[in-house]
Amino acid sequence: MKSIKSYVQENKDRFINELIELLKIPSISADPAYKNDITKTAEAIKISLEKAGCNKVEICETPGNPIVYGEHILDNKLPTILVYGHYDVQPADPIDLWDSPPFEPVIKKTEIHPDGAIFARGSCDDKGQLYMHVKAFEYMIKEGNLPCNVKFMIEGEEEVGSSSLEWFVKRNQEKLTNDVILISDTGMISNKQPSITTGLRGLSYVEVEVTGPNRDLHSGLYGGAVANPINILTKMIASLHDEDNHITIPGFYDKVIEATEEERIEMAKAPFELDDYKKALDINAVYGEKGYTTNERNSIRPTLDVNGIWGGYIGEGAKTVIASKAFAKISMRLVPDQDPDEVTKLFTQHFENIAPKSVKIKVTPHHGGHAYVTPIDNIGYKAANKAYSETFGVPAIPQRSGGSIPIVALFEQELKSKTILMGFGLDSDAIHSPNEHFGIFNYLKGIETIPLFYKNYVELYNKV
Amino acid sequence: MKSIKSYVQENKDRFINELIELLKIPSISADPAYKNDITKTAEAIKISLEKAGCNKVEICETPGNPIVYGEHILDNKLPTILVYGHYDVQPADPIDLWDSPPFEPVIKKTEIHPDGAIFARGSCDDKGQLYMHVKAFEYMIKEGNLPCNVKFMIEGEEEVGSSSLEWFVKRNQEKLTNDVILISDTGMISNKQPSITTGLRGLSYVEVEVTGPNRDLHSGLYGGAVANPINILTKMIASLHDEDNHITIPGFYDKVIEATEEERIEMAKAPFELDDYKKALDINAVYGEKGYTTNERNSIRPTLDVNGIWGGYIGEGAKTVIASKAFAKISMRLVPDQDPDEVTKLFTQHFENIAPKSVKIKVTPHHGGHAYVTPIDNIGYKAANKAYSETFGVPAIPQRSGGSIPIVALFEQELKSKTILMGFGLDSDAIHSPNEHFGIFNYLKGIETIPLFYKNYVELYNKV
Repeated sequence: MKSIKSYVQENKDRFINELIELLKIPSISADPAYKNDITKTAEAIKISLEKAGCNKVEICETPGNPIVYGEHILDNKLPTILVYGHYDVQPADPIDLWDSPPFEPVIKKTEIHPDGAIFARGSCDDKGQLYMHVKAFEYMIKEGNLPCNVKFMIEGEEEVGSSSLEWFVKRNQEKLTNDVILISDTGMISNKQPSITTGLRGLSYVEVEVTGPNRDLHSGLYGGAVANPINILTKMIASLHDEDNHITIPGFYDKVIEATEEERIEMAKAPFELDDYKKALDINAVYGEKGYTTNERNSIRPTLDVNGIWGGYIGEGAKTVIASKAFAKISMRLVPDQDPDEVTKLFTQHFENIAPKSVKIKVTPHHGGHAYVTPIDNIGYKAANKAYSETFGVPAIPQRSGGSIPIVALFEQELKSKTILMGFGLDSDAIHSPNEHFGIFNYLKGIETIPLFYKNYVELYNKV
Repeated sequence: MKSIKSYVQENKDRFINELIELLKIPSISADPAYKNDITKTAEAIKISLEKAGCNKVEICETPGNPIVYGEHILDNKLPTILVYGHYDVQPADPIDLWDSPPFEPVIKKTEIHPDGAIFARGSCDDKGQLYMHVKAFEYMIKEGNLPCNVKFMIEGEEEVGSSSLEWFVKRNQEKLTNDVILISDTGMISNKQPSITTGLRGLSYVEVEVTGPNRDLHSGLYGGAVANPINILTKMIASLHDEDNHITIPGFYDKVIEATEEERIEMAKAPFELDDYKKALDINAVYGEKGYTTNERNSIRPTLDVNGIWGGYIGEGAKTVIASKAFAKISMRLVPDQDPDEVTKLFTQHFENIAPKSVKIKVTPHHGGHAYVTPIDNIGYKAANKAYSETFGVPAIPQRSGGSIPIVALFEQELKSKTILMGFGLDSDAIHSPNEHFGIFNYLKGIETIPLFYKNYVELYNKV
């Protein structure tokens, strides 16, 4: 039987080329124009699982984008690992800031990735990371050392709120029965220091529309006399934070579980250089909630950010207009035990309350999700930590992340199993940004580490 | 000799059709993509003046868009009227709010315009209004009753700040010598109550850019820990007005000449129904500077309005991004004696001062202009007032307007002559907005009234 290390060495060019083909399909879920590419990508994932040796793969239709479901059952007495991933990607805008086209993958060396990285939208989030699981599975099948049952559930709406996944999970609890859920859709500290994400923030995302006059007006003839919806919107958004950058929505913090002093001391031990952080982002100062460090602000604290704003004339030159409408997309990251629906309601009520009567307000909720924390005494966590130790030479550090994978809370609720977040990306991989990339080292290391998780998990499972 | 009234009756279909042809050319000066249409429109204006009988017409090249200059000199001893207009138009965005394409003119009846109105970008501002002068001139030439010399100066950059006009006027003071300047680029109270604009606000227009991190970031991983340039921009803009809607820029009001109590009493006599105003704009309440009425807010008070704002993800759906940059276009309407360059400097300094050090700021000035007031004892004002009385049956009311025609102050400074603003548009004509239109009644009434101005002016001139 070949070791995973030598199997990866022999097949790495093929592994890279297969991923590149997958990255060429612009499976953007936020924009209906890419509907055909979504279908094409689901089809490609299905074929890749079949070729890897999975003995039952199907494309499951949903009210939204299809879910690729695969299973390879060896024996009902063995434990079952459910692998989750998503084949949809973020939009590529702003497109002009990409050094190469987002859906024409290229391999380039960087300071952090001397072995090269694949530059393309979705390379890290999440096509690259989900494809590691397909290739790790291929190895275990080809070499006959798959130690347990495995199920794959690869969805196409993660970037827009996974609403069809929720629909699917609630209707297929039996089919999806498992002992542990394994996801690679997060990052680690560095290529020398692996880490396992043990906490995720929740999310409430709303779109707001402020309407002033019923048509665009000449700013000379009406300026100063009617409410300008853009000025009003800026005033309303500005008022959502106080001077200490606390969020001013009444009741917003009511359910927040404050981190203990011990947890904060533990967190502060993670390697972090403020100067490097500022240099990497080219900023003169960090900015955030008073009383918390940078690492606390982006992990254990809830936040409110405008993700997009627009209104009036945004073309070249000058147009003296008062717009009829102004818009913003606003997201709130949540921590345990904030409830996303409740927060969305609190936001909506507050936003309506603070609007002057000279404008009309509309708040449209997008998707939301609960925050989640994985206990580190779970055998899944231990199996993952051991796997990292074996391939990286050092144990992983548990980390709370600021990001959201709302479906993790859903899985716990509907499938009653814990999720292990074995991420292989880096913070600098620019996910959701122009020039997203994924290190060749990380991709191959992921493929090496995953079969060890399977092995360790089954061993620990049998001991319990 | 035919009366102007019967000349208009006999030729009105041709007058309307000629204007419609002119409106078909999309001479948008704010967007370089329409450069050819600018040239085409200048050429069309030149031909129309020649056909009307003007004995010298030329297209004058400038650093920017060409100026059409025409003159018809009868005798150097006679007074000279200089007619100014502009053939460029505002951009048509938002294009989807037009009921018919902006450059495919259609005639439709409305409640206010039972004789029909021409719907097209530029129909009122200013192609329709400038073309009244061409047709009034045609009448006076054809019927042999032009009572004085006339010069035409029709420019193509009014909507973007008239910088080439300034260049041209400063270099052609002798050529442009005149006794009075006549402009139709404003409105009147109603089709039953003519008015003459005696005051115009000045303008300072800036574009601001706020840069946070050097690239777009994932709002989960960085949200709360770095300055979000959109949130910062909303905070900065919101702070530019205090709770009473006074502008907070230090020094902004220093040079403002406050209106006297008498002036405010006089102004309050103009017909104005707040309920109709609110109904026409579909707003529940007006909004503006404390201590002033609606008509004061949009005429004798300086203002600050955001004309456009953009940043982050503005496509469909949700994207959890922290943008690297956020932008806004901001204009300030000025009153005598505020200096636009000085105000632009005050704004820039203040905007840089209030920026937190976690972001970088760039302020780019667009065009500006001085405010202007016409004295009502001027013979030009009297000649216009008499002309309106003759065609409308009632004298015109003097009115201060909130709009800006910065070149009026320039003319006074460089050509030492007063400007008479004989506007025939209505507030409801939606200039700068979707569905801009110009009443057939107004267009023909303008053509009738203008020759009477010429006649009255020369009579009053000879008496002095």
